[in-house]
Amino acid sequence: MVSAFVAGGASLMGASGAAGPLACGSRKWVGVAPHAAGSTVRGYAPARAGALRMAVAVEGFEKAPGADLSEQGHHADAMIATKVSDVMKQKGIERPVIIGVAADSGCGKSTFLRRVLNIFGAQVSKAHTPQGDFITVICLDDYHYHDRKGRKVANVTALDEKANNFTLMAAQVKALKEGKAIYKPIYNHDTGEHDPSELIEPNHLVVIEGLHPMYDPRVAELLDLSVYMDVSDEVKLSWKVQRDMAERGHTLENILASIESRKPDFAQFVDPQKKKADIVLNILPTQLVPDDKENKYLRVQMIQREAATNFAKVSIFDEGSTIDWVPCGRKLSCSYPGIKFHYGPDSYFGEDVTVLEMDGVVEKLDEMIYVESHLNNTETKFYGEMTQQLLKNPTAPGTFNGTGLFQVLIALKMREVYEKCTGRKLSVN
Amino acid sequence: MVSAFVAGGASLMGASGAAGPLACGSRKWVGVAPHAAGSTVRGYAPARAGALRMAVAVEGFEKAPGADLSEQGHHADAMIATKVSDVMKQKGIERPVIIGVAADSGCGKSTFLRRVLNIFGAQVSKAHTPQGDFITVICLDDYHYHDRKGRKVANVTALDEKANNFTLMAAQVKALKEGKAIYKPIYNHDTGEHDPSELIEPNHLVVIEGLHPMYDPRVAELLDLSVYMDVSDEVKLSWKVQRDMAERGHTLENILASIESRKPDFAQFVDPQKKKADIVLNILPTQLVPDDKENKYLRVQMIQREAATNFAKVSIFDEGSTIDWVPCGRKLSCSYPGIKFHYGPDSYFGEDVTVLEMDGVVEKLDEMIYVESHLNNTETKFYGEMTQQLLKNPTAPGTFNGTGLFQVLIALKMREVYEKCTGRKLSVN
Repeated sequence: MVSAFVAGGASLMGASGAAGPLACGSRKWVGVAPHAAGSTVRGYAPARAGALRMAVAVEGFEKAPGADLSEQGHHADAMIATKVSDVMKQKGIERPVIIGVAADSGCGKSTFLRRVLNIFGAQVSKAHTPQGDFITVICLDDYHYHDRKGRKVANVTALDEKANNFTLMAAQVKALKEGKAIYKPIYNHDTGEHDPSELIEPNHLVVIEGLHPMYDPRVAELLDLSVYMDVSDEVKLSWKVQRDMAERGHTLENILASIESRKPDFAQFVDPQKKKADIVLNILPTQLVPDDKENKYLRVQMIQREAATNFAKVSIFDEGSTIDWVPCGRKLSCSYPGIKFHYGPDSYFGEDVTVLEMDGVVEKLDEMIYVESHLNNTETKFYGEMTQQLLKNPTAPGTFNGTGLFQVLIALKMREVYEKCTGRKLSVN
Repeated sequence: MVSAFVAGGASLMGASGAAGPLACGSRKWVGVAPHAAGSTVRGYAPARAGALRMAVAVEGFEKAPGADLSEQGHHADAMIATKVSDVMKQKGIERPVIIGVAADSGCGKSTFLRRVLNIFGAQVSKAHTPQGDFITVICLDDYHYHDRKGRKVANVTALDEKANNFTLMAAQVKALKEGKAIYKPIYNHDTGEHDPSELIEPNHLVVIEGLHPMYDPRVAELLDLSVYMDVSDEVKLSWKVQRDMAERGHTLENILASIESRKPDFAQFVDPQKKKADIVLNILPTQLVPDDKENKYLRVQMIQREAATNFAKVSIFDEGSTIDWVPCGRKLSCSYPGIKFHYGPDSYFGEDVTVLEMDGVVEKLDEMIYVESHLNNTETKFYGEMTQQLLKNPTAPGTFNGTGLFQVLIALKMREVYEKCTGRKLSVN
């Protein structure tokens, strides 16, 4: 089921990463992080708990910039290859495409990434870092400086810029984009400690996901597409309550306390990234039902930054105008509370954006295909591809509301960006 | 500039009127008038003022039903031909199409009829009853029983059913539809009296316009299309003030008194016709500007009855759904206060209808052509025909708001009905 290349004149030279064979808009990134490059560790006392990780010489690799910055030594074995990987030639990779996905935990990231794999027809290993023939998904938690104990000692949360090694992150993502292999640190969520670094080869598509893919300008400017997954506090709470109370036995008090305690750092270090993201997926309470406490119905926005040039903005009916659309009517019957779309230009933190919004849920296939048939610039490869994708995972969260629809749409935009940046066309089967 | 027939297999038999060569939906009319057929004169004392008009025998004609019902004898010379007119053969008329336009005075009827003539590329004489090669426009005031004095004596307004000879109206409209000539009464607005009846030949298209084209079921069921032009009280007042104060030197008090005095009969005898009209043109105050006392900007609706089968309902973007559309944005810039469209199914006095609404004004040609290009089922014969029509009469009232747009659209629907009922295609040049 892996996608096959069908076009693209893939001359298998070592890709530089800086410029692909076709134009792929270079981003002019205005960083949201106020600190100067290299100053990320300034101002907090290094903790000495935990064993230092020692760098071991590996042929063809050198110590990565930033590897020494971790006071606890957790990144000391992080390395970067000195030349372009043979994998590039073997796999016919000309230009690795790097896409950043920013999201807090519990925002639907794993469902989204599953939809992305489906759109690319790609499979990945069930390893710490999921890898496959086509896609590699790197979790940026691996660039946490501290282990869990260390954060307590240093009194920082994982959200804090000071808790993350952006110098290393930038160097290693840049290396992958240049076609070089890396030894990437591993933050083990089960133990809360660092495991020995692992070898990551460049790939056709590298997704970096986590709390800070766009926080540091050096990382952000490497991204061919940046996606921010936003969930409003009300919805986040009800999701956490459903998951953590039901599945993990937490109390409501604990959940609320945990959310509250994260808020300041989240607001300072994670949230601002959305201002500069190419696409924001924004999940809000419905406006169709007066008092939907459970957040059973959702209003979901896909906010597309106008300045982003690597993909065509999705519109409804008429690009550039403002439209409210209730598709339910004479030709399409919908179940309660129906669905309502909004589309139009808007301003988002001072940036020109195009907003696409879906409120409500669909219940039947014909509603979904009807909606899909009226969206422009989806870049589907056949009629009904979005609907088909949604129905491949009918039980996945959000499949019948705007979350699923726009997750698939963003995945399609990722495919579009991939094709634009590489000049290759993916086929589907 | 008269339209030429380009298709239609016109076998020039005497048309029966009941069924054209192609299917043209026969209307199932549910009359709004509560009275039984033939009982229109019951219950009021006949006035004897004024000279009796005497019937004169004309070869090939016979006295029309209802000609004797006029107590003052004003309709005594009304006749109907005993056989189909030679004009039918001479002009190649197979099936006269009859369209009713209901409107109060001062509702923009004459501007509308000018637009209709333009759409058909037809010209008419400047006679009491405008006639041309293609279209005849009959004013239903000719079927008033009384002259102006008589109405005073009988104490009825011209709006009252009792003041109008529906038996004669039905018989003569039916005759025209069957291809027979008539001698039609003339109500002279200048003198307020009746002139001798005039010969009216059948024609390709006969428009009957006035206060009651759909009031009497016998007349209404003859109509291939019925149009009601509605103007809200606020707008009607400001129009009347502008016209009657400025042009005719009336005082505001007089205007208000005149409006108030007509209200009960208008509500009883004219207004109810809109409930059954195929198309209602509804002119309302704007919602874009908070306090538009002058009614400079208007909100205009074109209400299309679903049960009407002789024309395709006009929609925006997606037939059958509900849409609010502000075309002004990235691709189209609009001047203040911009334009806003609404489209969707609705209920209108218990009838299923489709509403098309335009609020605001356009200022430039590109706004108009942009709007036109997004309307479905307009049945224009070339790209931009609506815009071209509007700009043929740039100074006509309503040209830059929804009034003009929908008047042209209704004229296009009249052309569509004509083509459907006759099986002929009109060409434009």
